[in-house]
Amino acid sequence: MDASATAAKPFDFAPLLPADLPAPAAKWNGFPKYNFVGGHNDAAQVPVDELVAAATAVLKREGRTLATYGLESGPLGYRRLREFLVEKLKRDAGISCTADEILITSGSLQGIELVNGLLLSRGDTVLVEQVTYFGSLNRLARLGVKAIGVPLDHEGLRLDALSAALDDLQASGIRPKYIYTIPTVQNPTGAIMGEERRLGLLRLAEAHNVPIFEDDCYADLIWDGKRPPAIYALSRSRNVIHIGSFSKSIAPALRVGYVVADWSVLSRMLPLKTDAGTGALEQMVLAEYCAPHFAAHIPELTRALRAKLETMMEALAEQFGTAAEFDDPKGGIFLWVKLPGVVDTQKLAQAALAAGVAINPGFEWSPDKPYGKSRMRLCFGHPSHAEIREGIAVLADVCRREFGVPSRIANVERPTAGRPVSDSQDGQRRL
Amino acid sequence: MDASATAAKPFDFAPLLPADLPAPAAKWNGFPKYNFVGGHNDAAQVPVDELVAAATAVLKREGRTLATYGLESGPLGYRRLREFLVEKLKRDAGISCTADEILITSGSLQGIELVNGLLLSRGDTVLVEQVTYFGSLNRLARLGVKAIGVPLDHEGLRLDALSAALDDLQASGIRPKYIYTIPTVQNPTGAIMGEERRLGLLRLAEAHNVPIFEDDCYADLIWDGKRPPAIYALSRSRNVIHIGSFSKSIAPALRVGYVVADWSVLSRMLPLKTDAGTGALEQMVLAEYCAPHFAAHIPELTRALRAKLETMMEALAEQFGTAAEFDDPKGGIFLWVKLPGVVDTQKLAQAALAAGVAINPGFEWSPDKPYGKSRMRLCFGHPSHAEIREGIAVLADVCRREFGVPSRIANVERPTAGRPVSDSQDGQRRL
Repeated sequence: MDASATAAKPFDFAPLLPADLPAPAAKWNGFPKYNFVGGHNDAAQVPVDELVAAATAVLKREGRTLATYGLESGPLGYRRLREFLVEKLKRDAGISCTADEILITSGSLQGIELVNGLLLSRGDTVLVEQVTYFGSLNRLARLGVKAIGVPLDHEGLRLDALSAALDDLQASGIRPKYIYTIPTVQNPTGAIMGEERRLGLLRLAEAHNVPIFEDDCYADLIWDGKRPPAIYALSRSRNVIHIGSFSKSIAPALRVGYVVADWSVLSRMLPLKTDAGTGALEQMVLAEYCAPHFAAHIPELTRALRAKLETMMEALAEQFGTAAEFDDPKGGIFLWVKLPGVVDTQKLAQAALAAGVAINPGFEWSPDKPYGKSRMRLCFGHPSHAEIREGIAVLADVCRREFGVPSRIANVERPTAGRPVSDSQDGQRRL
Repeated sequence: MDASATAAKPFDFAPLLPADLPAPAAKWNGFPKYNFVGGHNDAAQVPVDELVAAATAVLKREGRTLATYGLESGPLGYRRLREFLVEKLKRDAGISCTADEILITSGSLQGIELVNGLLLSRGDTVLVEQVTYFGSLNRLARLGVKAIGVPLDHEGLRLDALSAALDDLQASGIRPKYIYTIPTVQNPTGAIMGEERRLGLLRLAEAHNVPIFEDDCYADLIWDGKRPPAIYALSRSRNVIHIGSFSKSIAPALRVGYVVADWSVLSRMLPLKTDAGTGALEQMVLAEYCAPHFAAHIPELTRALRAKLETMMEALAEQFGTAAEFDDPKGGIFLWVKLPGVVDTQKLAQAALAAGVAINPGFEWSPDKPYGKSRMRLCFGHPSHAEIREGIAVLADVCRREFGVPSRIANVERPTAGRPVSDSQDGQRRL
């Protein structure tokens, strides 16, 4: 008692905090045992030896330039990385741009924030996909921007639904600030929008004088390596801002992404990037690594990811039977799963986490919360094949206990559920 | 004409931009020839070979952990780097903290933004030093927060002036959200606040129930290596948030800084850090390098910086004579110079830039614009000794042409200006 009486009274920060501060973070206690959330990648595919060689070469050659903010490349980012991107974007996405039309960002998350900072004010409206990246929805909510979800099909954004939404807004005198789309391996559905759909989307956007915000951060992870041109590449009116990332193609802990836009747009965005530059060592190592190795690395990575996806689909079929419906995505690191309507995936996620299994409940991934209620996103990039099998078994067990589905667990009086057919003709499969 | 008539009309983003968007960026055309702005460092002191060895060792050992966001350390940042900081902060700054009281940030700029996000709302008031870091003032202005400047002396914040400012605010019913101070190598004056002054500052802050925001980002760069304990270390009520950086001690293009605060504070700040982690490779390489090398690196770096400072003070004495007044700072990478009242350094900066010399005009460094009018900040970390001598000569020439001072150029009927005495007893010198 005496000791505490003489100790200084602890300062109370609470009365100083803004009213809208998010809830406190919990202490981090390591990853869950079965981790099916987050854009983590396959650890075995991190090209460690080549990254060592790249770091050694680029540091020996240019390490002294670390003494200046922005190296000797200025605020758009390390020039050799932008030059690599000029070639990569031309080859893979059909984009013709110069190094001065690329802004290197601290992850594509910063790209999202810069686009939002450029275009959005509180009270604005944007159009998004009916289910879409949680982090984008979150940011829009924090900014006080209304996100209207547009229904999807197996090719992504449905143009009839988009047209109706644009007409509705126009009738209400509202000009949406952008149409946000993840057209190439949609998050979470994995859909890839075909070229015709992209052209139709551009026609609609141009007719309504609305720009398109194209998020291509998963676009490198396609099983057959084939993708349509970026919407950015197809636009003749230059009404598209394009973002991408190295997080999914090389390693998520490297925080390097990029924005592609006309200089007239980038020059307005650049003053909002007040971080004194994106980490230069990561940019340098990526440029040095990617120029010779990127094109060969991607098929190795996607082969490993595809194999994990197969394991996950098999495990779901085995453990959930017909209770789990999903398409067979053409790329990516996640599976979007529909469970029976009786399942509330928000509650499932809580119960599963207590059993060591982390999943993304669907409501987080949708501006239309009820739509996401019985859906979940399962990421398969990081866990091992064994962890995928075990984790899905635990998840099924928890789901059965909490919601009564699936009605039987694996190998115990389970209705026959065929082995997933991964080569079905239309690239989709419902189980 | 025909071609342009058939081309798509370029999309006009302008009507979509928020009204308060900053002015567009100009294209970057390289650094000015004589670059006395920005926190750049001495390129020869970047420990390239050791960074190569560190990158090789840490990538070989832990490179595969790049496959997960946050490595295996969680959102506070790479654990080995936080563990290094626990020891470093204890040894250098007298701070006792745990690794869970340190948040690694993407540069100390992000630290500033997180502290601001934690505590500030539009319309708030904070106390800052009469001249202080431009980037902090800028951010406060953007947030709509009033920054009241408190006069400084050779030890930094004057307690009589601070006491008066706190009383004034109290009388007006205003509780300032924080007292922002750079107590250890103040930016731009280079002042170091002694321990007694720090204790007095704490007493005042506690009496007025105001937290202290301690920015120690230059604190490693002290010629004699001696510094008082951090204010954070001296606080018994835990009313201090402390930030620091590796930008000045290792390399500015590495974007790694840190916040030290109680977990009760960090847990509220962490949800505001929405960048999915600070670049992991930079954290890993820094941790691997710093644990064995940091303590030996700093004296080498500061010796080189001190030598450049000597060159700059000599060049100023030679070129400006008595027209340039400045203290001899005990550390850092900049010199804060007072020119005769006839000189407007904003105009000088423009004219000098046209002649290839970049300087920071004083008004940018002060919430009290007239105070800064004839002052300027000159950074000496990056330019070579020859560039310092040449650049100061060009600057004097421009200044004489524009403002008539200095009245004579070097070696031409110049009044005698003695060689700077760098070991004057009080560590200060006016020329």
